[in-house]
Amino acid sequence: MRYLAEINDGHQPSYGDDQITSEAQRLFTDVFGEGARAIFVPNGTGANVLGISLLLQPGDAVLTTNVSHVSEEESGALTALSGAQIFTLPHEDGKVRLPALATDLSRRWGRGFHSALPKVVSIANSTEYGTCYTNDEIRQIATFCHTSGMYLHLDGCRLPNAAAALGQGLRQSSRDLGVDVLSLGGAKNGLMSAESVVIFEAFDLDLRRLQKRALQLVSKTRFVSGQFVPYLRDDVWLQNATRANNLARGLASGVERVLGEGAVPRPVETNQVFCVIPDSAKRDLREAGHRFIDWGDTETRLVLGWDNEQSDVDGFLDVLEASLQRRSHGS
Amino acid sequence: MRYLAEINDGHQPSYGDDQITSEAQRLFTDVFGEGARAIFVPNGTGANVLGISLLLQPGDAVLTTNVSHVSEEESGALTALSGAQIFTLPHEDGKVRLPALATDLSRRWGRGFHSALPKVVSIANSTEYGTCYTNDEIRQIATFCHTSGMYLHLDGCRLPNAAAALGQGLRQSSRDLGVDVLSLGGAKNGLMSAESVVIFEAFDLDLRRLQKRALQLVSKTRFVSGQFVPYLRDDVWLQNATRANNLARGLASGVERVLGEGAVPRPVETNQVFCVIPDSAKRDLREAGHRFIDWGDTETRLVLGWDNEQSDVDGFLDVLEASLQRRSHGS
Amino acid sequence: MRYLAEINDGHQPSYGDDQITSEAQRLFTDVFGEGARAIFVPNGTGANVLGISLLLQPGDAVLTTNVSHVSEEESGALTALSGAQIFTLPHEDGKVRLPALATDLSRRWGRGFHSALPKVVSIANSTEYGTCYTNDEIRQIATFCHTSGMYLHLDGCRLPNAAAALGQGLRQSSRDLGVDVLSLGGAKNGLMSAESVVIFEAFDLDLRRLQKRALQLVSKTRFVSGQFVPYLRDDVWLQNATRANNLARGLASGVERVLGEGAVPRPVETNQVFCVIPDSAKRDLREAGHRFIDWGDTETRLVLGWDNEQSDVDGFLDVLEASLQRRSHGS
Amino acid sequence: MRYLAEINDGHQPSYGDDQITSEAQRLFTDVFGEGARAIFVPNGTGANVLGISLLLQPGDAVLTTNVSHVSEEESGALTALSGAQIFTLPHEDGKVRLPALATDLSRRWGRGFHSALPKVVSIANSTEYGTCYTNDEIRQIATFCHTSGMYLHLDGCRLPNAAAALGQGLRQSSRDLGVDVLSLGGAKNGLMSAESVVIFEAFDLDLRRLQKRALQLVSKTRFVSGQFVPYLRDDVWLQNATRANNLARGLASGVERVLGEGAVPRPVETNQVFCVIPDSAKRDLREAGHRFIDWGDTETRLVLGWDNEQSDVDGFLDVLEASLQRRSHGS
Repeated sequence: MRYLAEINDGHQPSYGDDQITSEAQRLFTDVFGEGARAIFVPNGTGANVLGISLLLQPGDAVLTTNVSHVSEEESGALTALSGAQIFTLPHEDGKVRLPALATDLSRRWGRGFHSALPKVVSIANSTEYGTCYTNDEIRQIATFCHTSGMYLHLDGCRLPNAAAALGQGLRQSSRDLGVDVLSLGGAKNGLMSAESVVIFEAFDLDLRRLQKRALQLVSKTRFVSGQFVPYLRDDVWLQNATRANNLARGLASGVERVLGEGAVPRPVETNQVFCVIPDSAKRDLREAGHRFIDWGDTETRLVLGWDNEQSDVDGFLDVLEASLQRRSHGS
Repeated sequence: MRYLAEINDGHQPSYGDDQITSEAQRLFTDVFGEGARAIFVPNGTGANVLGISLLLQPGDAVLTTNVSHVSEEESGALTALSGAQIFTLPHEDGKVRLPALATDLSRRWGRGFHSALPKVVSIANSTEYGTCYTNDEIRQIATFCHTSGMYLHLDGCRLPNAAAALGQGLRQSSRDLGVDVLSLGGAKNGLMSAESVVIFEAFDLDLRRLQKRALQLVSKTRFVSGQFVPYLRDDVWLQNATRANNLARGLASGVERVLGEGAVPRPVETNQVFCVIPDSAKRDLREAGHRFIDWGDTETRLVLGWDNEQSDVDGFLDVLEASLQRRSHGS
Repeated sequence: MRYLAEINDGHQPSYGDDQITSEAQRLFTDVFGEGARAIFVPNGTGANVLGISLLLQPGDAVLTTNVSHVSEEESGALTALSGAQIFTLPHEDGKVRLPALATDLSRRWGRGFHSALPKVVSIANSTEYGTCYTNDEIRQIATFCHTSGMYLHLDGCRLPNAAAALGQGLRQSSRDLGVDVLSLGGAKNGLMSAESVVIFEAFDLDLRRLQKRALQLVSKTRFVSGQFVPYLRDDVWLQNATRANNLARGLASGVERVLGEGAVPRPVETNQVFCVIPDSAKRDLREAGHRFIDWGDTETRLVLGWDNEQSDVDGFLDVLEASLQRRSHGS
Repeated sequence: MRYLAEINDGHQPSYGDDQITSEAQRLFTDVFGEGARAIFVPNGTGANVLGISLLLQPGDAVLTTNVSHVSEEESGALTALSGAQIFTLPHEDGKVRLPALATDLSRRWGRGFHSALPKVVSIANSTEYGTCYTNDEIRQIATFCHTSGMYLHLDGCRLPNAAAALGQGLRQSSRDLGVDVLSLGGAKNGLMSAESVVIFEAFDLDLRRLQKRALQLVSKTRFVSGQFVPYLRDDVWLQNATRANNLARGLASGVERVLGEGAVPRPVETNQVFCVIPDSAKRDLREAGHRFIDWGDTETRLVLGWDNEQSDVDGFLDVLEASLQRRSHGS
């Protein structure tokens, strides 16, 4: 925000020809290596949809998990814009497994021209369940994609959390593993309203025209790109993600301490905690101002943000504990 | 074909304003009741895509099974034309079950504006596995759709086989059960190249413009609509379907006789037989000119057409039996 | 029709793997030369939309005249299926002129990424006004397209009439002039319901999948492709087109004889005659069973079909003459 | 910007459920009257495309001028997202004239189902040429649209300039004239990156789902909506627009003084000045840091922004005058 106020002064060329955008682009090249091209967009749905659609030609389809944002949480935007059919595969704690992927594709290829054929596999890291793909898992999926004439797209709206958890950089978590196009989030990790698409291949694409066509070209691009300058330059992404991950780990331990081990049924690897909480406690927590959403039939999804504090975690656990005690006393 | 030669004479208005098309439309009204409107189209993919897309507005999605033609076998055509996302549910012998349907939709409705929302449920009868929905099953799905603000589309490319198996008419198998739009096949049951979409509600739609936009308006419509005249008038649909169903039943019995009961793992209710045949026998059958496709890892799909004869079934079983004997002798 | 009855016998593979389709494909190669690939489709809108969309990638636009079928007469089908914007240029007697084309494109290229950019120029020969592009005119447009990184599509629903008028073959009228993709009509020149797309370049495209996705793949392809066998083999296209062209010339002379030279304001080069007829005469002609449509404010469009006879022309002129005499006597 | 820093504090619900967005929505209701609903989007292309597409159903087309942004400057985005064909009409100083509109539509309606039919007429005020429609002109177009079953969309990316020039409010310039949907700009008139769609009819639409599907839903909506709070509350829109309009008037007078009356061939009614400047002077002006673009063959388009000062105008004129004197001395 401070940085935005700075760059608000002076008259700058629009549509991304300004110096701030050049500076941001230079930082992306520093981080992701030569040839990495960044596109700055105002929202995460746009980052996913534009990122994937750059890889599609008419008749191509997309393969992703049945909990992926691009299939389940983006209101059909990818389909609407690209006309591409989305096929989904069941997930395991948010991940697609290579054998399931290979089996499904093998069956489709066998159907010949009757089936639309996936050209892009899209995965998210960290996943929608807060788990992290290992480097090997992503590398193997990428290799499978490339040997099959497909591309790998990474929904990285939570990539900072994954990279922080894996103790490695953003490039090591994407380009170096064979990812072709990355949608790199900002808004979920501290930025006001800035997302990006990062392209690693020298695709012969008219990026700015396609960006505008996808309704993602903001005239005063510097207010989007500029948010990434301190974010990348000063490792803000890493600090914010690390803190959120740590808080999540603490929260998970606390919930297990209060409710028992079964209360946190999934691995807590980044900033999301899925837990099983009694309905009465959920009511008490909501009354106390805590926000979370129900997930499936029994789970509750807690997301630790870049702006959460240790006191938020402590407060949550206090209410939870008090609620349980009241209930056990009452019974 | 004879009828087509008859209607080839004389100069007729194009785009469906001719007398033959009027006659065909009249027959559809006879069969399906007052208010039923038929659209005559040249192929089955078109019948499904046009039929479903008539029910969609921007932002709507479609829900169907993960073996439905519209999702798996039509090259992404519905998505391409309508921009609507297709969600799929696992099937049971080709059918979607109402509880699974209700659970999935309930979850989506709970996600609010993040998810595209199905406006149309599309099922097929007979199903892609040759099974038949009972009247009650379809009626319950239709009621659920209507009370939830959705429509029910029936892919009826094999409806004649289902109706014949259920011993009832085409109307009793669709409109009377609550189906809103029916894609009624012809080519799989004896017609040269003619399919139709039948609309039962008085939707305020500019049908011919939408038909042309969906690339389904043939200028000399009478050559498409005309095929339905003897088909409906002389119950050709019923004779052809009944014969194919009977042949399938005979074939299934024969396969069980030769290979044992486990060789026909799914119910044979119409003109499709799924069976488990040894690879060596499949080779022999193919060499003898029989055509079938592998389905999944172990099954083989046999489809009995309107133009198959008892001798085709007998020939198949003879080759199968001989192949097995050779193999057992050889061992 | 006779030929269709012949090919109705026997069981044939579907989706274009049959012998009749192979035979038709062979005839297309004979006529258009090595490497020409034909796609058989059931209607003319489909032939145009599929033909053009094969050349488009996301973000590409189409440039055509403001009387072209693809823009004005096909209900928005190209846009709906491909998502490509259509830009139009004013026509001169149905033709687009190269200078106007070059000026418009130059302006668009200058706008940079703000404008969608045409990738395909689509023209029709004969044009919607019955005029013929000369070979030079088409060759120059094709050269301009190719040097600018664009493709030339030819809407050939009336190409037989143009070729007959120019006294040359179908290949000389398309491929040899630089046309990249041709939509070749049949239904307007005697076929029941058969159109085709002919591709001259070795585009790396999965044609059958794209054909199915565009709702243009008929399962029993032989009933479409088969119509082209006698059409091309026995020069039916040429006989039908020549006869219609000759009738049109005779009709135009007759109209001029009766109404004066100004009554036929446009050149009559193929099978269409645009004329200015008094309203009272139009009424009389319609009463006598003649069919035509009003065009713009003053013109009437007469189309001579492959199935018109000299007696139709004579009858038209008799009614016209009688109507005028009545009017002049009455005044 | 100051206001944005204020609203940056505190944790707020996302996707528009926050207090700042409620406040902004309340201000829109104050300005535009009861029932006006505002949608906050991050860029102008999105505001136009979403605004228009809300009014479209499958098969509908859009009619606009051949210099409209939505047709010429938005990279085909409307077509890509909605699948709707765009028809254009020639403009007169940026305006479409009702008689031309009526004639074109009358011809299309006469074509029946062959033509896609416009459901939305989209105009801009002020126009792309800086001219203003009078209230009567818009009212008559709106009445024509409504009596013909169509809607009127107003591209208001420069509506503040038009309203300031006409001496009236934003509501008097849109809703009160019969406009159905307004795309109201902010970025061209001082906001960082905020546009809006304002809907006046009680359309039964799931706005947030359609907004997300159009890639226009920013998670932290308050940073977009919040920009409109001071803009509307403190009449920032009016001050900025008035200043830019005044500077434009002064610039036009100056150019005419220096170059003669013919140098400003179009009426200067808002903040755009089209002028004919010698090439040598354009070079000198560009060297001195002034930015403008060539328009057509002879004109130059100068846009006065909310952030221009009188000194910019003076500087421009000084360079222009000096350039001319040098040239005349040199000759």
